[in-house]
Amino acid sequence: MTLASDRLAPMANAIRALSMDAVQAANSGHPGMPMGMADVATVLFAKFLKFDPSAPKWADRDRFVLSAGHGSMLIYSLLHLTGYASPTLEDIRNFRQMGSVCAGHPENFLIEGVECTTGPLGQGVAMAVGMAMAERHLAATFGDDLVDHNTWVIAGDGCLMEGVNHEAIGLAGTLKLGRLKVLWDDNKITIDGDASLSTSEDIPARYRASGWDVFECDGHDFADIERALGQAAASDKPTLVACRTLIGKGAPNKEGGHDVHGAPLGDAEIAATRENIGWAHAPFEIPAEILADWRSLGEKGAKARAEWEARLAASDKGAELTRRMAGELPSGDEAAKTFAGWLESETTVATRKASENVLNVLAPLVPEMLGGSADLTGSNNTKAKCQSAFNADDYSGRYVYYGIREFGMSAAMNGMALHGGVIPYGGTFLIFSDYARNAIRMSALQQTRVIYVLTHDSIGLGEDGPTHQPVETVMSLRLIPNLNVFRPADVIETAECWQIALESAETPSVLALTRQNLPQLRTSGTMLSARGAYTLRRAEGGRKVILVATGSEVELAVKVRDALQGQGIGADVVSMPCMELFEAQDAAYKHEVLPNDPSILRVSIEAGVTHGWERFTAFSRNGGLNIGLDRFGASAPAKVLFERFGFTVDAIVPQILEKLSV
Amino acid sequence: MTLASDRLAPMANAIRALSMDAVQAANSGHPGMPMGMADVATVLFAKFLKFDPSAPKWADRDRFVLSAGHGSMLIYSLLHLTGYASPTLEDIRNFRQMGSVCAGHPENFLIEGVECTTGPLGQGVAMAVGMAMAERHLAATFGDDLVDHNTWVIAGDGCLMEGVNHEAIGLAGTLKLGRLKVLWDDNKITIDGDASLSTSEDIPARYRASGWDVFECDGHDFADIERALGQAAASDKPTLVACRTLIGKGAPNKEGGHDVHGAPLGDAEIAATRENIGWAHAPFEIPAEILADWRSLGEKGAKARAEWEARLAASDKGAELTRRMAGELPSGDEAAKTFAGWLESETTVATRKASENVLNVLAPLVPEMLGGSADLTGSNNTKAKCQSAFNADDYSGRYVYYGIREFGMSAAMNGMALHGGVIPYGGTFLIFSDYARNAIRMSALQQTRVIYVLTHDSIGLGEDGPTHQPVETVMSLRLIPNLNVFRPADVIETAECWQIALESAETPSVLALTRQNLPQLRTSGTMLSARGAYTLRRAEGGRKVILVATGSEVELAVKVRDALQGQGIGADVVSMPCMELFEAQDAAYKHEVLPNDPSILRVSIEAGVTHGWERFTAFSRNGGLNIGLDRFGASAPAKVLFERFGFTVDAIVPQILEKLSV
Repeated sequence: MTLASDRLAPMANAIRALSMDAVQAANSGHPGMPMGMADVATVLFAKFLKFDPSAPKWADRDRFVLSAGHGSMLIYSLLHLTGYASPTLEDIRNFRQMGSVCAGHPENFLIEGVECTTGPLGQGVAMAVGMAMAERHLAATFGDDLVDHNTWVIAGDGCLMEGVNHEAIGLAGTLKLGRLKVLWDDNKITIDGDASLSTSEDIPARYRASGWDVFECDGHDFADIERALGQAAASDKPTLVACRTLIGKGAPNKEGGHDVHGAPLGDAEIAATRENIGWAHAPFEIPAEILADWRSLGEKGAKARAEWEARLAASDKGAELTRRMAGELPSGDEAAKTFAGWLESETTVATRKASENVLNVLAPLVPEMLGGSADLTGSNNTKAKCQSAFNADDYSGRYVYYGIREFGMSAAMNGMALHGGVIPYGGTFLIFSDYARNAIRMSALQQTRVIYVLTHDSIGLGEDGPTHQPVETVMSLRLIPNLNVFRPADVIETAECWQIALESAETPSVLALTRQNLPQLRTSGTMLSARGAYTLRRAEGGRKVILVATGSEVELAVKVRDALQGQGIGADVVSMPCMELFEAQDAAYKHEVLPNDPSILRVSIEAGVTHGWERFTAFSRNGGLNIGLDRFGASAPAKVLFERFGFTVDAIVPQILEKLSV
Repeated sequence: MTLASDRLAPMANAIRALSMDAVQAANSGHPGMPMGMADVATVLFAKFLKFDPSAPKWADRDRFVLSAGHGSMLIYSLLHLTGYASPTLEDIRNFRQMGSVCAGHPENFLIEGVECTTGPLGQGVAMAVGMAMAERHLAATFGDDLVDHNTWVIAGDGCLMEGVNHEAIGLAGTLKLGRLKVLWDDNKITIDGDASLSTSEDIPARYRASGWDVFECDGHDFADIERALGQAAASDKPTLVACRTLIGKGAPNKEGGHDVHGAPLGDAEIAATRENIGWAHAPFEIPAEILADWRSLGEKGAKARAEWEARLAASDKGAELTRRMAGELPSGDEAAKTFAGWLESETTVATRKASENVLNVLAPLVPEMLGGSADLTGSNNTKAKCQSAFNADDYSGRYVYYGIREFGMSAAMNGMALHGGVIPYGGTFLIFSDYARNAIRMSALQQTRVIYVLTHDSIGLGEDGPTHQPVETVMSLRLIPNLNVFRPADVIETAECWQIALESAETPSVLALTRQNLPQLRTSGTMLSARGAYTLRRAEGGRKVILVATGSEVELAVKVRDALQGQGIGADVVSMPCMELFEAQDAAYKHEVLPNDPSILRVSIEAGVTHGWERFTAFSRNGGLNIGLDRFGASAPAKVLFERFGFTVDAIVPQILEKLSV
């Protein structure tokens, strides 16, 4: 069915009313954007978007991303009006209150119809790029009859100004992601005032320069909106539609001004708005006829979905697509068997190279793994032999050349994981995780299976110097909730950590890997890394010291232990590839590894800041001892740096003896 | 004097020879860029750049930024050849070795002629924007006869692709920074291969869309380079010069390929290059005639500097400019007296508002303070009453509307501080420091006086929800070396922390400030925050508990203490506005505040992750107690959130009693 224009205006006003009333009830929120973009969103949902409110997780639905997430009442209104089970009207009444799924910004983990969490500006567009990439990849793999959908985005000036968005549009243009359509809320207002205070860009020209199509429309003229969205839908390029709007459209005394951006309208202006838009209904009351028009939109989608379900059932690829979209890994224990064989190999190898070896086992077995690097493929060792390039000529490729765009890559990986059907992993130097830090946080908050391969993980990278040497980086990543930070010590732990990362469906992972070679330290045991930490070497004689180390410093800890044992001092070595997983163990296991006995001296060794290690060492003899690097590094060969900064047996053993002697 | 083109070729080859030989000697480094850009750099230094090697800190010199810092041998060659005292030939021979100032990437703190540290891609351009801003501001303030210089940048494809660069060029275009000239090493190569693997942008069109002029040249044709650089110098817009070059130019078998980017050429190719470019000299040997040509370039600059020194001496503004460029604060104790008066005021105010009050005292007294915000002026409270907008119509303004560009703002502030003559500060929400994190790290590494005003510092911001609520952010910033992270508890501490930040000439500061109101807790004492932590309330009766808290949780700690005292349990409250400064105190003071007595229970209270607090609490009764938030927040009013997550007297006191009873 197609709704005539005269039916659209009241539908759009329903969004305006719900938005202004919910913000007023909460006495907090952003009415300007939902009111300004109500007309555009109504046309999008009425005429273009493919969705079925009864099946929010339908694999072949169009994705809709509200990148300007502060305008959250827009999407809550749309989902409720079109008949999604969530949010209810009660949720909307409790906008921004504890327990309501209608949070201040849309959260993917609270409402199924919210495709991604879009609080931080710019990342919504960048995640949408990832969704569009996943769509093209799955379409190339499973065929257009099973995968054939668009990704629609609503973005504001803030999104467009952020650097991550620039990275995202450059990537989308290069990859010719024609299924990506961005509707720009061109209201010429930012929080500080007129957008001209801080920007003078010719935005259409900039997008065209990046390989995009650009169309424009009057964002309050339904026919013009439909014309422009139709052109966007027909384009085979990623497309920007500049929708000229009045922020807060409908509020007679405030529309077009920046005061309406982020504060309730107030009772008087709300009354004036009701008058102005002809909305004679009580707060949160939607007339049945208008609601029926909204609800009717789902019918088209339900029909399309039924047809798709039939195609899926008939396809010999249906089961595989269903498995992938469910996020279930392929069955079989081939990888585990291969890795078990490595125990006997005595391989000395950098963990970045070990990671490549692991990938060459896993990538052929797990076809949904989609790798890449931010222009450091040969350094991050992220490309498996079986992977060819993912590009506009071949979307079935499984390796993405992201370019020098760490943040854009990371946000795109979030979008891919949220889209489903692929498991994204991507590499850069560990230090440049700083550039992508908020996307990593968003992986964690959104509970996505994204795997960050972060190599060159300490001063062990050597000559490139302090700008490239992570010092605080590993510990700072450990502070992010719901993120597993792995720092494996050898090829065995690297294989284990990769497996854990793949199996963690709702927790992203960081693999912090060395540039330099490390000996194999483990020759027995299965999946010991899964407990986060374990005793790698046991004290002989009475245990007086426990050395806790990670990654490249485990080798050093073993040497320190041998030196202590040589002096008759019993010492354990605990390898701790993942603090977070160790923290999650029960008290009995934790005390087995780190006994609650303050007479034992606990010593941490890690080539990074010591702050944070006290959690594991301070409740110990004389407050414990932390060997680390509490300053920036320097430019020199790795071996020289480790010596200079005290990461040697000769430098560490005397400190331990002194602590023991007090 | 002007050198003819036939004299330039051997000069450029001197750069090529030094670069390939130094990289070979180090067996590490990047010869491709210095060899590719040798011709352009030679023309720049010979014909355009205003510099005096005998006075690297001359205030009115042109700034030269090697944004593509991996090509560090280019700048080391240029500085040595033109006669700067540093680096010496010995330094160059020891490229990338411990102790050499010729680090892998250029470091501003090692060599005076290096204007900024440029390891991380993109930030060199963004810092150059800040330098050009500082130049225009000082020119508007002190006149063109004292301040009149350009900022020249060499940047590569990597720099141009990074999001921070996009933010920077948008800002530069809007501010019409005509003194900014970027020379783009357009070699069409990235590490992964052809640049076309990951980018398809029409870069000149993109820059023009941002308000830039764009010129192009053959980067190996001296006359053409001079023509293009002349056009750039004459433009009144920020200007990009696309220099078409061959990476590794001169190496006959490797030039133009991506293998020459980041690895030594090898002995055979070096010999072939010598043959190819007609360089018959031994490694590190520069013929006297060529060296003389290079050394002659400084003469023009020395003459210009002498004239400038005379103008400076004659100007009534000379002393003030000299003071500002030296980074010395104005004398006088007016601010301190004002703040002392506040002790009696009993002001209840959010610390972001307290910060605004402080700014209204400091900004009129310290005219070099140049403020701004990333489009959150009214929320960050960063604009002092005395400040007007810094923009293309009035560069004497002292407040920058940075737009929604947190990373670009932060990098620009680094550039301003490095330029000298201004003290930049800028605001955003604390959580969005994630976007700018590596620029904050670069503030610390480069030892710049940059002040980050980061408001909405916990779940106390309320309804905006977990994407806006810092949880791990404060602690993660504390891990960065040479960064002071302040979290003041009330208006008094806010004033103290601002003063310390201003007085820290070589250490950047973060001020983490609340959205919500806080009562004044201090009514006596002077500059107690300078010791990082101090006893705010003393136990009555025997001291059994020490409560350590920061920012908004100090108020709660005082209430908890009162409740404990009501039960006869003596408890101190320690306010810790700056962990780093407390760590820097002597042992006697530290033990005065936190006695080395494990029978006392130490309790931390902070509305963020607990990891990291064990440093101050774990060596205490039963391992201490950490009250915090080890998960993401939620969307609800602040008061509801604090209750929900256990930040109440009723929730905390029983936990303390339990720890005491064990």
